[in-house]
Amino acid sequence: MGGGAFILVLAVALAESVGPAERKCQLNGLWRNDQDSLMEISVLGDNGDFQGQYLTRVTLSGGCAQISPLRGAQQQLGEEGWPTFAFTVRWEKFSNATTAFVGQCFVDAGGKEILSTMWLLREAVGSLEEDWKATRVGRNVFTRKRTTKGKTLPNLSPLCEAVSSPAP
Amino acid sequence: MGGGAFILVLAVALAESVGPAERKCQLNGLWRNDQDSLMEISVLGDNGDFQGQYLTRVTLSGGCAQISPLRGAQQQLGEEGWPTFAFTVRWEKFSNATTAFVGQCFVDAGGKEILSTMWLLREAVGSLEEDWKATRVGRNVFTRKRTTKGKTLPNLSPLCEAVSSPAP
Amino acid sequence: MGGGAFILVLAVALAESVGPAERKCQLNGLWRNDQDSLMEISVLGDNGDFQGQYLTRVTLSGGCAQISPLRGAQQQLGEEGWPTFAFTVRWEKFSNATTAFVGQCFVDAGGKEILSTMWLLREAVGSLEEDWKATRVGRNVFTRKRTTKGKTLPNLSPLCEAVSSPAP
Amino acid sequence: MGGGAFILVLAVALAESVGPAERKCQLNGLWRNDQDSLMEISVLGDNGDFQGQYLTRVTLSGGCAQISPLRGAQQQLGEEGWPTFAFTVRWEKFSNATTAFVGQCFVDAGGKEILSTMWLLREAVGSLEEDWKATRVGRNVFTRKRTTKGKTLPNLSPLCEAVSSPAP
Repeated sequence: MGGGAFILVLAVALAESVGPAERKCQLNGLWRNDQDSLMEISVLGDNGDFQGQYLTRVTLSGGCAQISPLRGAQQQLGEEGWPTFAFTVRWEKFSNATTAFVGQCFVDAGGKEILSTMWLLREAVGSLEEDWKATRVGRNVFTRKRTTKGKTLPNLSPLCEAVSSPAP
Repeated sequence: MGGGAFILVLAVALAESVGPAERKCQLNGLWRNDQDSLMEISVLGDNGDFQGQYLTRVTLSGGCAQISPLRGAQQQLGEEGWPTFAFTVRWEKFSNATTAFVGQCFVDAGGKEILSTMWLLREAVGSLEEDWKATRVGRNVFTRKRTTKGKTLPNLSPLCEAVSSPAP
Repeated sequence: MGGGAFILVLAVALAESVGPAERKCQLNGLWRNDQDSLMEISVLGDNGDFQGQYLTRVTLSGGCAQISPLRGAQQQLGEEGWPTFAFTVRWEKFSNATTAFVGQCFVDAGGKEILSTMWLLREAVGSLEEDWKATRVGRNVFTRKRTTKGKTLPNLSPLCEAVSSPAP
Repeated sequence: MGGGAFILVLAVALAESVGPAERKCQLNGLWRNDQDSLMEISVLGDNGDFQGQYLTRVTLSGGCAQISPLRGAQQQLGEEGWPTFAFTVRWEKFSNATTAFVGQCFVDAGGKEILSTMWLLREAVGSLEEDWKATRVGRNVFTRKRTTKGKTLPNLSPLCEAVSSPAP
């Protein structure tokens, strides 16, 4: 077999190996949204459960954010289609609010992965009478953040100084 | 000890046993919402993480629902106040949708616990162009469902027949 | 004609006059929601447009509410079905927020009309960076408030004193 | 007049013509959103009420959209700040759904006007039992669409053929 034929075969093999990855969406990895918040999703379990970390750049209180744990699940689809998912973030210390996201992973025409999400942000209120105003809604779009191998969220984002009393 | 004194002691004992329950909200246990869906939250971890099961009475597809796992977290408040929480439900088999709830636990004037929640329901769509219509929003109020000791969600709700192929 | 027959005729007449009202939903009239807010919708135009007044009992600022104008439209359905509608409230003076409702009119099994609505409440923020937190979401259920003939919202609800400078 | 003076005059003139537009947001005009839907808002009334037309590129039913009337109100702020607004769209014929938007007008760093909105889309359902699934939520960002003078929405968008029976 000549060199040209070999290269052709290799190219076909690469296309085949890359192709499915381009069409599939994989939640694990590091993501950044349109507000510059960062999110890292670790390996998914067999049933779709996943864990990770979230670092928001914005807080209701204006206080300093810290890396907060997230937990969620990817819906198990059949062979075809892009997966939906949902996760919750338990804000560490700096907030009396809690957040849940739902979304779907897409691959756009250029092969770029996109997580299109909407969220509810729930604040604590003092009584049932104030319950009506406790829930905010919004949308965030995440794209994959390229990093050098081994870089993870804690290394990337030493946002808050190690202070004895975190911001309220 | 006369009958009057005995009754007084009993009343005090009851008040003491009911009292803390009236002021605190505890997420664990069995809950029913205004659509007759059932939810069971197991014991919470030290960091607020919890797991449980959800049995919806309503599905987008109209298909038969099955008990589905839920996972979430309660926000850790200080001493005072009622906790907020968030959780996700990974629908087993019967749906290509995923759901996230946020809410807060309240105790009303009569001492009844209430979980006031809002949720997002995300459906899978085939492309980014259809993404705009994929998210529904709603509200559910849960109250504690009294059960005889030991009754749990799987025992209470044999909703779907054990069929070989569950509804799509 | 004997008294019994007369009563029978009267009952039939009443049933006939109530009947259509039980099946149809009419938006016009005075409504009260689960937060005790009041809403009066005036006669609808041929194209479904309507106007009215809204008196909220709850405000973000905690300030004194005033009767505020609402405007909206009922979707024109065919013969069958209950109408959907949407309207906006322009809060007079006391708020920098604005609200929009969407909903549907139902008649429950007992013949009672119910407006099931969800709303978005938008606050003004100072910059695009704060835009993410500006929108709240909630649900309200309205039922018709019976009044003696001629009673309208302004007469029912002299909430705020006539002060020279309304609350901020 | 020397060159320096001329440039100064020109600069002042530019500042006057550009300046207020950069700082103020004006709702009236033609807007396009990230889904290519078009919206035209006519002159606002003294109290903030406005009317206009909406042409969506996307419909729940997949049917052909037609230009639909919108009505809303801009919240009257004081001197400072960017206005919030809310409006409803009464879909003509092709849909049994109704929509309400809330949003705020911003001017970004480059002087470009942006309408950041969120919306609720309410479908008609057949009974109260189905009410839970009737409301969708989403976000749209509009930017001003430049047109040659006099161009208006009906001229720009002859989307549907003039057929005797519009799409369902």
